[in-house]
Amino acid sequence: MYFAKMHGLGNDFIIIENLEENFLDYSKIATKVCNRHFGIGADGLLVVEKSDKADIKMLIFNSDGSQAEMCGNGIRCFAKYVYEKKIVSKNIIDVETLAGVLKAELRVINSKVDTVRINMGKPVIDKISSIYNSNLNNLNYDIKIDNKVFKASTILMGVPHTVIYVNEIDENEILFYGPKIEKLDIFPNRTNVNFVKIVDEKRIQVRTWERGAGLTLACGTGSCAAVVACYLNGLTYNLVNVELAFGKLKVEYIDDVYMEGPAEFICEGNFVL
Amino acid sequence: MYFAKMHGLGNDFIIIENLEENFLDYSKIATKVCNRHFGIGADGLLVVEKSDKADIKMLIFNSDGSQAEMCGNGIRCFAKYVYEKKIVSKNIIDVETLAGVLKAELRVINSKVDTVRINMGKPVIDKISSIYNSNLNNLNYDIKIDNKVFKASTILMGVPHTVIYVNEIDENEILFYGPKIEKLDIFPNRTNVNFVKIVDEKRIQVRTWERGAGLTLACGTGSCAAVVACYLNGLTYNLVNVELAFGKLKVEYIDDVYMEGPAEFICEGNFVL
Repeated sequence: MYFAKMHGLGNDFIIIENLEENFLDYSKIATKVCNRHFGIGADGLLVVEKSDKADIKMLIFNSDGSQAEMCGNGIRCFAKYVYEKKIVSKNIIDVETLAGVLKAELRVINSKVDTVRINMGKPVIDKISSIYNSNLNNLNYDIKIDNKVFKASTILMGVPHTVIYVNEIDENEILFYGPKIEKLDIFPNRTNVNFVKIVDEKRIQVRTWERGAGLTLACGTGSCAAVVACYLNGLTYNLVNVELAFGKLKVEYIDDVYMEGPAEFICEGNFVL
Repeated sequence: MYFAKMHGLGNDFIIIENLEENFLDYSKIATKVCNRHFGIGADGLLVVEKSDKADIKMLIFNSDGSQAEMCGNGIRCFAKYVYEKKIVSKNIIDVETLAGVLKAELRVINSKVDTVRINMGKPVIDKISSIYNSNLNNLNYDIKIDNKVFKASTILMGVPHTVIYVNEIDENEILFYGPKIEKLDIFPNRTNVNFVKIVDEKRIQVRTWERGAGLTLACGTGSCAAVVACYLNGLTYNLVNVELAFGKLKVEYIDDVYMEGPAEFICEGNFVL
């Protein structure tokens, strides 16, 4: 079966096409091809299917075979793939996902997709009891752990995100405090934890401790949540360059949140199903 | 550039050909293609080159770009590759490596290589001060750590291997005692540590704590060392099935040590250099 491997800021995916809608057990294929020693190796599987309500449909499966609703790094890879493989010949592509139809705007240079801008939807900035169980102001409150106090904000960007403001990004600090903050009593469904250093009003650095997944290379929704929280607290403008471990995202908050970033081909070929 | 990804018991490799002897920076290619998020992803890179003293030459590079002398799981993949790609059409292939010319015997079923048997050379079973700095009998001595006593043997199978005899394979025990045994004062150059459960005289289970690399899925030289140590201590025959985390090796000790096991294709395709 034909595949491509791509990545968006180090978040890597195997992409397969099933435009003829053959019966394929995607969950089984995902666990097989995503395995990093016995398979090609990736964080997830993206499947290209026909859509009857958008230009194209994207399905995402995690490496454990479970299906995901959406993934910011994944949809950029997906959009570059369907454009460069001439499956969809448009610069603005409507992509059907389990999280609804999302618009992907392609920045094309010499027929190659350089970056993709995705409308990530609206953040929920009011207190939501399912993610934040406290009477404190959820946009600006203190988290105390042991003898350490962090300034924090908590919002919903599809998934719950807590932003922790730090002077320097320190991996050891993230590994130590990330899992503790994730499981605080005020988060009945746990939370992703984004450690954010504000460089200036147009530039922040972000590293995310993902709920369940630990420290990751780049979290799209976390980057969006960080910019929304920083902007609403008057710490940055509403258009910010977010510096991640291995690259940058540009995030803009104008009612909806827009995330723009790169996607890259790694290899393509065939595997035996 | 054309590549194949293969694995031997979960130890995975990218294979490329350079029969025309073009100048290629293998070390740089290895770090790029072996990276599991930004590259195809593998433990190492195998390069197929012409040989003027054997049927074919194998070069091995680790994922950090350093060159390795030999790898038991790698050479089985290599031998299957050059046979099935019709680069060498012989059932017994002499492979030039940095560890000398090694003989690979292929078990072929319907033109496909089922298993490969490798002459792994001779074990050194005498005490060698560079690996074992003690007056105890290196084939049968006690290691005491905290209040725990292990029966142990130490031999050289290309690299230093200590065999620890246990009643049950217990990963937590390996993770706890492996690094402590690796660094005992009696091993001036440290040692690999193989936890071995003897099931019967023809069957053992092995999990290896590799010096520098930690708990690995399958260690070829460790499996060979385990069988030599068990045989010399009268615990098994000289032909033993070694059960590893995800498969089996057959090891025979008759002056030289022979290791036979599987190799599998995962995918093939192209990547941009």
